[in-house]
Amino acid sequence: MTIPLISIVGKSNSGKTTLVEKLIPELVKRGYRVATIKHNKHGFDIDHEGKDSWRHKKAGACATVIACPTQVALIEDLERDLSLDEIRDNYIKNADVILAEGFKGNPFPKIEVHRAELQRELLCGKEDNLLAIASDSKPEIGVPCLDINDVKGIADLIVKNLLK
Amino acid sequence: MTIPLISIVGKSNSGKTTLVEKLIPELVKRGYRVATIKHNKHGFDIDHEGKDSWRHKKAGACATVIACPTQVALIEDLERDLSLDEIRDNYIKNADVILAEGFKGNPFPKIEVHRAELQRELLCGKEDNLLAIASDSKPEIGVPCLDINDVKGIADLIVKNLLK
Repeated sequence: MTIPLISIVGKSNSGKTTLVEKLIPELVKRGYRVATIKHNKHGFDIDHEGKDSWRHKKAGACATVIACPTQVALIEDLERDLSLDEIRDNYIKNADVILAEGFKGNPFPKIEVHRAELQRELLCGKEDNLLAIASDSKPEIGVPCLDINDVKGIADLIVKNLLK
Repeated sequence: MTIPLISIVGKSNSGKTTLVEKLIPELVKRGYRVATIKHNKHGFDIDHEGKDSWRHKKAGACATVIACPTQVALIEDLERDLSLDEIRDNYIKNADVILAEGFKGNPFPKIEVHRAELQRELLCGKEDNLLAIASDSKPEIGVPCLDINDVKGIADLIVKNLLK
């Protein structure tokens, strides 16, 4: 079965990671296993210099896995940017819902994080499969607007739209 | 097709990671895509405090993927320790050979790294599917012994036994 996925979008510094960080325990508390996907077009820095896994990767391994009894990590080279559904299908198993952060222009349902103080326009419109806006104000663009701090309400919306 | 796997074993501080680190570029130079698996029974520390992916995982995500156009990383919770073949089958694609480090008691072909100065006995015997010993001395246990610094010779042995 395909794992339901919702994309948390928003301009930089709008508070996407903070919202994801609050939604995860709220959904876990309701019994859902939550996975996340983060995209960073400029690359990312993971692992610590000098660790064995870091040394393997630096020596030229195309993929390095490090495992212990409770956790596994994989770092793998890619030949091209993957789409959100490719990432979901190739890397995520055993989750009930996926929160994706930092992907734009995908076809998945979305919540846009917005803060009036940044004085910027919204990134998405109704036509972008936008389920709701999570904001500290009330932008009127014909989709529901939830309070950015109403984590329960936002989780309710995710459950209602993706998990029921 | 199942990816051939060789396990690099040895007592602690024998130089396993250093050997793996030298073998990777030697095999890559010969045209093979090399993946590695490292096992650490005491757990591992990956990712950096405060990074978005770190915040997702800490908030309770059962799996977190971070992706950029050239690389992807996955950190996933496990309910039990996985065997080497489970890790290979679940996490490694697109490699020609896998070097595994730190797994004991597995059925895969092995090279044992040994240094006389540590004054310790060997970990494996012929019955453990030991292809060779890589040592700074010449322990006589009925399997070939290669010089610990003869990276080309050790790579030849891997190619001959696993990749031809």
